[in-house]
Amino acid sequence: MSKKVSEKRYKVTFLPENKSIYIFKGETIFDASMNAGIFLNSECGGVGTCGRCKVLLKSGQVEKVQSELLSSEDKERGYVLACQTYPKSDLVIEVPVIEIEEAVIQEGLLAEDILKLEITEKVLAGIKRLDIRDVKILPRVVKKLITVEAPLIGRSSSDKYRLEIALKQQLGLEDCFIPLEILKKISDVLRKGNWMITVTVDEISKDLIDIEPGNTTEESYGLAIDVGTTTVVVYLVNLNNGKILTSASEYNKQIRAGEDVISRIVYSLKGAGLEVLQGLIVETINELIVEVCKRTSVNPEKIHSIVCAGNTIMTHFLHGVSPKYLREEPYVPVANIFSPVSSKEIFLEHTPKAVVRSAPSVASYVGGDISAGLLISKVAEQEKLTLFLDMGTNGELVIGNSQWMVSTSCSAGPAFEGGGVKDGMRAIKGAIEAVKINPKTLKSSIKVIGGLKPKGICGSAMIDLLGQLYITGIINRKGKFNTDLNSPYVVIDKANPYYIIAKAEETATKKDIVISEVDLDNLIRAKGAVYAGITTLLEEVGLTKDNLEQIFIAGGFGHFINVRNAIIIGMLPDLPEEIFTFLGNTSVAGAHLALINRDKWKEMEKISRNITYIELFNNNKFYERYVASLFLPYTHIEEFPSVKKMLIERGLFIQE
Amino acid sequence: MSKKVSEKRYKVTFLPENKSIYIFKGETIFDASMNAGIFLNSECGGVGTCGRCKVLLKSGQVEKVQSELLSSEDKERGYVLACQTYPKSDLVIEVPVIEIEEAVIQEGLLAEDILKLEITEKVLAGIKRLDIRDVKILPRVVKKLITVEAPLIGRSSSDKYRLEIALKQQLGLEDCFIPLEILKKISDVLRKGNWMITVTVDEISKDLIDIEPGNTTEESYGLAIDVGTTTVVVYLVNLNNGKILTSASEYNKQIRAGEDVISRIVYSLKGAGLEVLQGLIVETINELIVEVCKRTSVNPEKIHSIVCAGNTIMTHFLHGVSPKYLREEPYVPVANIFSPVSSKEIFLEHTPKAVVRSAPSVASYVGGDISAGLLISKVAEQEKLTLFLDMGTNGELVIGNSQWMVSTSCSAGPAFEGGGVKDGMRAIKGAIEAVKINPKTLKSSIKVIGGLKPKGICGSAMIDLLGQLYITGIINRKGKFNTDLNSPYVVIDKANPYYIIAKAEETATKKDIVISEVDLDNLIRAKGAVYAGITTLLEEVGLTKDNLEQIFIAGGFGHFINVRNAIIIGMLPDLPEEIFTFLGNTSVAGAHLALINRDKWKEMEKISRNITYIELFNNNKFYERYVASLFLPYTHIEEFPSVKKMLIERGLFIQE
Ligand code: FES
Ligand code: FES
Repeated sequence: MSKKVSEKRYKVTFLPENKSIYIFKGETIFDASMNAGIFLNSECGGVGTCGRCKVLLKSGQVEKVQSELLSSEDKERGYVLACQTYPKSDLVIEVPVIEIEEAVIQEGLLAEDILKLEITEKVLAGIKRLDIRDVKILPRVVKKLITVEAPLIGRSSSDKYRLEIALKQQLGLEDCFIPLEILKKISDVLRKGNWMITVTVDEISKDLIDIEPGNTTEESYGLAIDVGTTTVVVYLVNLNNGKILTSASEYNKQIRAGEDVISRIVYSLKGAGLEVLQGLIVETINELIVEVCKRTSVNPEKIHSIVCAGNTIMTHFLHGVSPKYLREEPYVPVANIFSPVSSKEIFLEHTPKAVVRSAPSVASYVGGDISAGLLISKVAEQEKLTLFLDMGTNGELVIGNSQWMVSTSCSAGPAFEGGGVKDGMRAIKGAIEAVKINPKTLKSSIKVIGGLKPKGICGSAMIDLLGQLYITGIINRKGKFNTDLNSPYVVIDKANPYYIIAKAEETATKKDIVISEVDLDNLIRAKGAVYAGITTLLEEVGLTKDNLEQIFIAGGFGHFINVRNAIIIGMLPDLPEEIFTFLGNTSVAGAHLALINRDKWKEMEKISRNITYIELFNNNKFYERYVASLFLPYTHIEEFPSVKKMLIERGLFIQE
Repeated sequence: MSKKVSEKRYKVTFLPENKSIYIFKGETIFDASMNAGIFLNSECGGVGTCGRCKVLLKSGQVEKVQSELLSSEDKERGYVLACQTYPKSDLVIEVPVIEIEEAVIQEGLLAEDILKLEITEKVLAGIKRLDIRDVKILPRVVKKLITVEAPLIGRSSSDKYRLEIALKQQLGLEDCFIPLEILKKISDVLRKGNWMITVTVDEISKDLIDIEPGNTTEESYGLAIDVGTTTVVVYLVNLNNGKILTSASEYNKQIRAGEDVISRIVYSLKGAGLEVLQGLIVETINELIVEVCKRTSVNPEKIHSIVCAGNTIMTHFLHGVSPKYLREEPYVPVANIFSPVSSKEIFLEHTPKAVVRSAPSVASYVGGDISAGLLISKVAEQEKLTLFLDMGTNGELVIGNSQWMVSTSCSAGPAFEGGGVKDGMRAIKGAIEAVKINPKTLKSSIKVIGGLKPKGICGSAMIDLLGQLYITGIINRKGKFNTDLNSPYVVIDKANPYYIIAKAEETATKKDIVISEVDLDNLIRAKGAVYAGITTLLEEVGLTKDNLEQIFIAGGFGHFINVRNAIIIGMLPDLPEEIFTFLGNTSVAGAHLALINRDKWKEMEKISRNITYIELFNNNKFYERYVASLFLPYTHIEEFPSVKKMLIERGLFIQE
């Protein structure tokens, strides 16, 4: 971008589209392709730090900046980073096809990121369930080209009337409501487009969303947004083909006002607290929208449809609706189903044309994120008895199959998303996402997202840590450090002992990355709430864990979780690892599906209505189980026979 | 209001309602009744200057301020001004019943205001047509009391859902759209009302407009607004019984940007001209709303429905929609039918709950004011061939009956509403509304609205003046002053001769009130446009003036017009006076009717669709007739035989 651009030009042909563009000498392949509307994957926007823009050089001469981001295998095969490569002759370039599925995988699970840790490969099996290649592209909001009759003397009916006639005759749209914003520009748009215009229509409500002069049907974008308590994820989607152009995520700025939903409700009750919280989530989303649009050069005014999925309370806050009665018996939400709103109504300032729909909640504490998750994971189509578990800040569970579904929620807290853990962070670049502790040296082997120096620990590594610390005898079943160890990695500070995962010299922060007893305490409470939730819900419907035939795990831990470690710590029931499937962020994936196919949206609405909700607040059995779960793996070791066996093998089992 | 209020109280009983209140000593009957919610008529708000608050003292002792505003007849019969009367014992008071009809008459024609001038009494006959006493009160927006089920543990569905169930079961409203504004307060309103709430519903769109705790069905108000080019009139209406509580009018502040619609379109094309014009009309309406609400102590938030009637261009400006293509061939409006908008969308800041509907236009230059006027005057139900003539700034005409209707428009300009005439003013208090010139002394006798000292001349008096100046020989058929006269009332200034109607010592302004040759010129052009319009439209449908069986005249001239003078000046065709009916402001009256009865609204929509529009722009015949009309009464005197006869009788006829 910074190199001086000369007048000399080279022809570059992109395969498989077989589209050619001319590149000025001094321009990178990446810059030129962006200008020419050819989409190359990118996360860093062409700076050269993400490695996503790799393309295969089929013929021609180039000048390139060397990069560590390409494996030597890739380099041998002829891959180059488009943003680091300048043509020196005409080129033929092959762009790796980015299938929808692949794009989703990037968010959920990046196969190449996974270290050869001793984890069961089966945790990867389930990813195929998120395959949406066969989904018909049938967005609710569509763009269509129409021709409007020009007025004549003696036939000077209004522009609005002639537009209405065209909508009726050419699109079969009767009594289409034309909002004032559009009315104000009808006349100019019709004349500018010489009576040929592109209309953006909501196919369900039959509302006219926008009109533009000429043919702009190519430019139709949507956003799928996971409005998480801790993390917000945005997908920018091309509504013409359903493909994800890019994605971005960020912490929910509401964290400043409290880490879990209850503390945020409390915050919302004070003064302008509600408006502040709405402002914070909206600001988070606004910034992410700017980011995804900037990265792809998409004009945010061409975004016509936004699907959000969040828990019930986040959905309330997003709409500026107070969830205060959700905090007191009988825990009543204002709404489970929010009507579509305009971007303006909820202050999404960059997307004035976009209608915002929020995935319907099932109940007070089982939100639209779950409806979206159940949609994408097809729980309602399963023959097998399935447990669907979304491990957000608020743990939400569904048990059922194609016949019936019950749900509940348990507050896991934000620990697994990096909250309440000193060195915790989200599963972004620089996060340690997997940990193994050498039982002899007590030293960690770590896997860092992006292969960089570590900055902190994300959820999947926390599960690993808790399990590995326990199984190596560094901590006991109460999560307390063994004070007898003499290891450079275990620091027995009286107030708050801790374990050093990475030494200052190895980290990006130049400080030790550690996990302390206080951190472990938070993690144990989080895992305990999840396990108590699962087992109580099973009991409520007269089943036990052994009835479960398949377990889907969704959530923002990172790219995967190590099921074995999750069982060791007693978060997941002690069942054969084959039945576990990790699905990644199903909330945003489900929102994406509902965004690109309106029938899927309806299916999601149906799912949300067909689930029975079981309240665990004030449920004594839940509290008993929760207290019993504040041990590793559990008060009664017999519930975890495989862990017991492992402890015995390692000589760590103590009969109490 | 200013008197000190003591603790001593008297009981005052109001008939016919038989409602009693206690009045503190020192309070006027008016103040106390306002506080108690008993409506007394008023225009001055209790200051003692309008004379509208008269009540009949049936029994008891009072202390009263003497007032000139009551006739001696009234005083004898026992009437007092409520705002000037303090009880000295318990009282029984009779409030004169204000019928809807009577209230309309107040705006259209106030019988007691009419001097015993030599005008044909028949001009008054038509007022009965505006009788709406038999109209069923069936407003589009209604308030209803409903009970919503309270939530229970285990039945904690959302508040929105339980509200929807109640709307469905108790009002038959399915899929009622609940806007975000309402969603935000559902929970608190339900709890505050102890699950009994009043819902405000649009019976046509099925939209929920508001919810309030408890029973507030009594408080439901609407506004009928005439959005005139020169004058804006607002009626405040009780939607429970259809009655007009009060009315107010004011010049359209847009006048600053141009007196006629064409100059305002030109203004709107420059810079932020459109926004400025929208701002000015909205400001005018906002101020009038404040005024009518203040006067009646009605909370403007309880206004739920607003019906506006204005010409096509005013309706565009009100909505902030540019009418620019109305100025160039083929004269295309953006819309003739505007969808309902919220008050917020058009910046009506005091009535956040009100839906605003604008009467549909017939065509580019025949607006919603005409649709409203045709509705209230029942032209579409007439057997007789009827000419409906609305003499606003833009003259709009309709000819037809129950079988067919044709319409056109001609730009009369604002002269008859006080624009372009130096001492012109609207028909408000202090305006000279009728003039007779003594043929011998050439001195005027005048009638002033409110019986005050005159401030200026309103439209009805301008017609009188033009006719009387001509018929007394002060001006000739070209509207030029006779320079041979030697009269203290005729001042032959070379540049601009003028006639003195009232001497400075008799006026409120302490300046002479005059009419000059330049003023007369404007008036002649205005009357000429009207006459040319009438005759051209007749010719276009193959008829002549002699086919007309009845003529309805609407417009803002004042309380009446003298048909004889209107014929003398050649504004109205020379036809028997019996067939003329003056209807006053039919625009606001029709808006009122459509406001209180939704079937009448539909009837108005139907009327607007069933009228054929004939374009007079670029019509050569129209221009020929217009030029011929720039004489008094007309180039060809044979078209005005009764005027010719009169001129001959007075020795003023000159064969040319
Ligand atoms: S775009 Fe990120 S490395 Fe090229
Ligand atoms: S209210 Fe106007 S005189 Fe009494």
